[in-house]
Amino acid sequence: MSDELLESELSNKKSEIAEFLKKEFPQAPIEILAVGDKTATVRYAVSFDSLRPGGSVSGPVLMTLSDTALYVAILATIGIVPMAVTTSLNINFLRMPKADRHLIAECKMLKVGKALAIGEVFIYSEGLDDPVAHATGTYSIPPKR
Amino acid sequence: MSDELLESELSNKKSEIAEFLKKEFPQAPIEILAVGDKTATVRYAVSFDSLRPGGSVSGPVLMTLSDTALYVAILATIGIVPMAVTTSLNINFLRMPKADRHLIAECKMLKVGKALAIGEVFIYSEGLDDPVAHATGTYSIPPKR
Amino acid sequence: MSDELLESELSNKKSEIAEFLKKEFPQAPIEILAVGDKTATVRYAVSFDSLRPGGSVSGPVLMTLSDTALYVAILATIGIVPMAVTTSLNINFLRMPKADRHLIAECKMLKVGKALAIGEVFIYSEGLDDPVAHATGTYSIPPKR
Amino acid sequence: MSDELLESELSNKKSEIAEFLKKEFPQAPIEILAVGDKTATVRYAVSFDSLRPGGSVSGPVLMTLSDTALYVAILATIGIVPMAVTTSLNINFLRMPKADRHLIAECKMLKVGKALAIGEVFIYSEGLDDPVAHATGTYSIPPKR
Repeated sequence: MSDELLESELSNKKSEIAEFLKKEFPQAPIEILAVGDKTATVRYAVSFDSLRPGGSVSGPVLMTLSDTALYVAILATIGIVPMAVTTSLNINFLRMPKADRHLIAECKMLKVGKALAIGEVFIYSEGLDDPVAHATGTYSIPPKR
Repeated sequence: MSDELLESELSNKKSEIAEFLKKEFPQAPIEILAVGDKTATVRYAVSFDSLRPGGSVSGPVLMTLSDTALYVAILATIGIVPMAVTTSLNINFLRMPKADRHLIAECKMLKVGKALAIGEVFIYSEGLDDPVAHATGTYSIPPKR
Repeated sequence: MSDELLESELSNKKSEIAEFLKKEFPQAPIEILAVGDKTATVRYAVSFDSLRPGGSVSGPVLMTLSDTALYVAILATIGIVPMAVTTSLNINFLRMPKADRHLIAECKMLKVGKALAIGEVFIYSEGLDDPVAHATGTYSIPPKR
Repeated sequence: MSDELLESELSNKKSEIAEFLKKEFPQAPIEILAVGDKTATVRYAVSFDSLRPGGSVSGPVLMTLSDTALYVAILATIGIVPMAVTTSLNINFLRMPKADRHLIAECKMLKVGKALAIGEVFIYSEGLDDPVAHATGTYSIPPKR
């Protein structure tokens, strides 16, 4: 496939997943920046509601974002599967995220099997080099009917 | 200490933590049911916003609740320490929570050291026996000034 | 079933699993103390080889023991399934184990589903109250042929 | 610093850590292939003892190797610190390792703070592209005296 065709296909896939997510999670301030082969990049718009006193982003926001980035990368890999569910998530908080920057999650699937998909996610304060969190998560994929 | 005195002390502690949490996380639909020696029981009021299509509670709600239950149990053990932060959380999703029941989190600290506190959390759909999720989490405790 | 019958059945099950383990892991210094409904208690005989300089038991010994205790509890629950394999393990080290005491692992399964089994393990220095480690692990169960 | 000088320094560091490990863990069939800034590459020589019936490498071997690779990367970063201890390890098993190939662990530290160091490890069957396991682990670093 030519690069141009591939790019247009990925762009279509991105729109399709974005539309699906908007229906499933209408409240989430999440934008898909890119999808690829077993990868996804997602931005979370930090707002006053995401902050803890002291001015950092709350842990649950980072967990939500990790979970969503994994879901997007899986949908990008196996197609829209509404019944895929998280079976486990492990997250390490590395540094305080900046209160005045949005969050970027970069997800890469480590394995996409028939029954289980496992991936890792790095989260960054937008524009900064050092990750604020790292997560690994497992999704259970329903058997095809 | 007599049982009566102990009970009244724990009740005071519960109110104090509840007030603190309300200031820190004003939006969270969370109620502290009980605190004890290295333990906490917390209820999360499930509403339409907590649901995924298909009628189950979303994973991030369970993560948020786990994190909060750990925080409450730590505050109950070492006193109000605003700067305690989560350093890691591991969660396993065991069963679909019921959409029409609130969630109960029961936390027990496994270790409360000088620098790190580690605990485990079981989450239940209120009134049911089988846990819907199990989490372990680590908090970093700031050095005393 | 009468208590006597149940006890004799569990004792048979224990012997059957012990024999199977001995064939699969002939080198492991592990003894099954008890099995029950979704539970197992296993002892690891600490020897000079298990120690780190400084006189504590090495981390990998605790991981091995956690993994084995989970395996025994699963075999006790679903029967001898040679192809069950660990898919993930999460362990928190809580306290230094004593160099001069054997280790006891107490495992309880949190869920035994058709495809996945999840359990937790507490490890103790024999005779002491505070756990030295806590683990959760997931096994994948092969489909029935 | 010139590239030549840097290389010779890293080579010295590698020898120093290898010598230290040999004293601490004389039985482990482990060889340090490379160390760098917050990174380490370690080989585990698979032998008959490391195998499970069926011909795969046992889970505990992969856990041991993950833990060791993290330790080597930490020692390479902060110097020989005998009292650094693992506080947690999370491992996902992705594919069956080959029975007839050694294992290669590539570790990268995600954060090396004053009290905690967190890193991730990919494990491969030597010469193959897809990882057989992925781990994240946390070490507690003792305060300087």
